[in-house]
Amino acid sequence: MAKNIQSLERAAAMLRLLAGGERRLGLSDIASSLDLAKGTAHGILRTLQHEGFVEQDAASGRYQLGAELLRLGNSYLDVHELRARALVWADDLARSSGESVYLGVLHQQGVLIVHHVFRPDDSRQVLEVGAMQPLHSTALGKVLSAYDPVAHSEIVDAERQALTPRTVTGLDAFEGVLDLTRARGWADDVEETWEGVASVAAPIHDRRRMPVGAVGITGAVERVCAEGELRSELVAAVRDCARAVSRDLGAGRF
Amino acid sequence: MAKNIQSLERAAAMLRLLAGGERRLGLSDIASSLDLAKGTAHGILRTLQHEGFVEQDAASGRYQLGAELLRLGNSYLDVHELRARALVWADDLARSSGESVYLGVLHQQGVLIVHHVFRPDDSRQVLEVGAMQPLHSTALGKVLSAYDPVAHSEIVDAERQALTPRTVTGLDAFEGVLDLTRARGWADDVEETWEGVASVAAPIHDRRRMPVGAVGITGAVERVCAEGELRSELVAAVRDCARAVSRDLGAGRF
Repeated sequence: MAKNIQSLERAAAMLRLLAGGERRLGLSDIASSLDLAKGTAHGILRTLQHEGFVEQDAASGRYQLGAELLRLGNSYLDVHELRARALVWADDLARSSGESVYLGVLHQQGVLIVHHVFRPDDSRQVLEVGAMQPLHSTALGKVLSAYDPVAHSEIVDAERQALTPRTVTGLDAFEGVLDLTRARGWADDVEETWEGVASVAAPIHDRRRMPVGAVGITGAVERVCAEGELRSELVAAVRDCARAVSRDLGAGRF
Repeated sequence: MAKNIQSLERAAAMLRLLAGGERRLGLSDIASSLDLAKGTAHGILRTLQHEGFVEQDAASGRYQLGAELLRLGNSYLDVHELRARALVWADDLARSSGESVYLGVLHQQGVLIVHHVFRPDDSRQVLEVGAMQPLHSTALGKVLSAYDPVAHSEIVDAERQALTPRTVTGLDAFEGVLDLTRARGWADDVEETWEGVASVAAPIHDRRRMPVGAVGITGAVERVCAEGELRSELVAAVRDCARAVSRDLGAGRF
């Protein structure tokens, strides 16, 4: 098997480094984090800067991610078939549920949010498109882990971090959650990721019956739960939405 | 001066190619578009795919942009100081004007939208964050061209395409528009980019009095204009917003 191109792998590692943690880094920090000679790191950074993937702050000389990534990320969304098919259904779900709607796909070891409809209540909200959510604790992530074998192997091998006292971290308990998800066709997250927040999600399948994503709603536990359980009318609305998008993608009814 | 790294430049060219036009391309198309041997193109594509910057459709074998770009684009926004400072002011502007608000910065030969607040009327709207707008015909673009010397030289050298019958394309006429923009401190676009749509924008300056972006509103010409001119209360609201963001960035009052 042919080798991957080393300078490209190093450039990708730099972008990942700048996307996490500190986010504004000097040349020495970058070189030492990636175990590269300063001259090597500088050559890659200069090219990345020239292409718009990295910007350098004039005052501090520190590097950060560049605008070209935002433009390319937007182009990625433009050709995203699942997202395009889901737009109208997700809007309808936000209206009928009164909560915010998220559409997520497996990416690396997490859920990448590819569409987000704000809660229709005029409150100030932050767009989460492009953000990552954990696989093991969110409703979207549990759905992907239950239905997508790739997601399942990612999360079984990973450390399942306790994000709240309610997060399920043990492997047997987590597999039990996935069995339940498959048995009833949806997953929930009642304060397992964020205190005070609950969510419910269902799987989306394509024409080959492959699980290609998950859609769900997220909201204050006081609104979306009754007696510690997800309100059944919200579960029904989410599952209706997931079925509608799946049908739009060509999945059969049976 | 040291050379940039060729494989990185080629990889960036591939991503730009996949971001424009066709957007799903086979190996042969990519190789011939970039004048590369197929083996060379394949080595770069395989590495880009391994890093998540490119995805390959299993059925057709065609390549498209990958999810990692969306994640990195989101991280770019997270460290964007102008955007962070403008969030609250942009929300207020959308409420007071009743129209959609855009925040744009110069990127390559256009305006990159880094923040977009939907028109607060519950209608279905498409998020434009990461989209590009032309420099010569939009209100945001005219503001950047008038105040930022880099933007000015980009658009003076470029072909100024007629997007509607009202687009100003001649160089002298366009320079006149920029003189007017500098004289009154704001720019408009009345059906010069999109039929039926008008916009108004004003410049944002940072603590060094450098023009770092523009903020504006966009809406149906019937709502935002009166007798062919931008309604003055909307102009005032946009300029108030731009001044507030500039102050937040540390620009002096005088």
